[in-house]
Amino acid sequence: MQKYKLYCVGESGNCYKVALMLELCGLAWEPVFVDYFSGETRNSAWREGINEMGEVPMLDTGSEHLTQSGAILTWLARSTGRFGGRNETQQIEVLRWILFDNHKFTSYYATLRWMVGLAKQGDPGVIEFLRSRVLGAFGIVDQHLANRAFLLGDEPTIADFSLVGYHYYEEDTSIDRDQFPHLKAWAQRIAELPGWKPPYELMPRGIKS
Amino acid sequence: MQKYKLYCVGESGNCYKVALMLELCGLAWEPVFVDYFSGETRNSAWREGINEMGEVPMLDTGSEHLTQSGAILTWLARSTGRFGGRNETQQIEVLRWILFDNHKFTSYYATLRWMVGLAKQGDPGVIEFLRSRVLGAFGIVDQHLANRAFLLGDEPTIADFSLVGYHYYEEDTSIDRDQFPHLKAWAQRIAELPGWKPPYELMPRGIKS
Repeated sequence: MQKYKLYCVGESGNCYKVALMLELCGLAWEPVFVDYFSGETRNSAWREGINEMGEVPMLDTGSEHLTQSGAILTWLARSTGRFGGRNETQQIEVLRWILFDNHKFTSYYATLRWMVGLAKQGDPGVIEFLRSRVLGAFGIVDQHLANRAFLLGDEPTIADFSLVGYHYYEEDTSIDRDQFPHLKAWAQRIAELPGWKPPYELMPRGIKS
Repeated sequence: MQKYKLYCVGESGNCYKVALMLELCGLAWEPVFVDYFSGETRNSAWREGINEMGEVPMLDTGSEHLTQSGAILTWLARSTGRFGGRNETQQIEVLRWILFDNHKFTSYYATLRWMVGLAKQGDPGVIEFLRSRVLGAFGIVDQHLANRAFLLGDEPTIADFSLVGYHYYEEDTSIDRDQFPHLKAWAQRIAELPGWKPPYELMPRGIKS
């Protein structure tokens, strides 16, 4: 079988979501480094040839170029029959959490982390806006996980891999994760799944330290 | 067949996305007014009984309570066999645009419209942050629609209904839509589909004028 190629950069939790799924499924894949921080995904070659949305990740399956982490995760769950939910009701529930992730959970947090932890600059009002949104979204998921091992119950799904994507990075994001004990315990449970690896063991860094 | 009940408020474009799909599919449904602007979706009865995410819409199908507009649209497309894409490749492409909508297209725009057009207050730095994100996302979709009638080509899908949700409201949002002629023409094409109705003909208002 052809190896999957994941166009990615290590700092991107959205790329990591897909890398983690590939790894937990035991699929043959390799990372292809994208120089995201020099603007490679925002130039016209990338937009016209790969993804008009100007983003990573992109998964080259050999026959298709897939983008948007949630769409790639769904495609992989369908192809492998793994981590997608056991029936249609669960599939819709998985999708519901992936949408929440894109709308409120990862989205604000990734931007906050960028400003506070990586770029180390940003309008203080915007940072406060993002912080308050992140605290709200984290609180909702923390509460949901108070009596569940994973988002859908006893078994991990791509919804977990989507939401957890930014939770193994070390930068300060101004969010105290000790406030969210169920979130912390859940990220730890995912880190104990057979095959789990942290982001920089799966993908090359874009920012040299 | 039992009538669907859509728990909604007219000002919410996320509710309208579902109302529009129900209407275009010719399904029997009725709106159930939710007093969103008085906080009905953020109290514990709503969070514990209906949607822990604290949001509308909720679709009561008679046997299930569904939330997140993109998940409801997907469920309706599967149930009716309509507007979901013709094959698996199209289904993934539909999902890709719905995710983009949740991440970057509706999300920033709905918040911008809230601050500028409805609440009429907000931190100027945050408004500028949202504006610049909206302009980026609108530009991407405008470009994509330059040579397509709908997001996937010749036929409308739930991806269109998701992205167009906030495009029939009249409030000023500080965005000049004449800058995006392909977006405007696309919203007009959707408004010409048989059965289309504007938001306040389908759902009751929450803010009395």
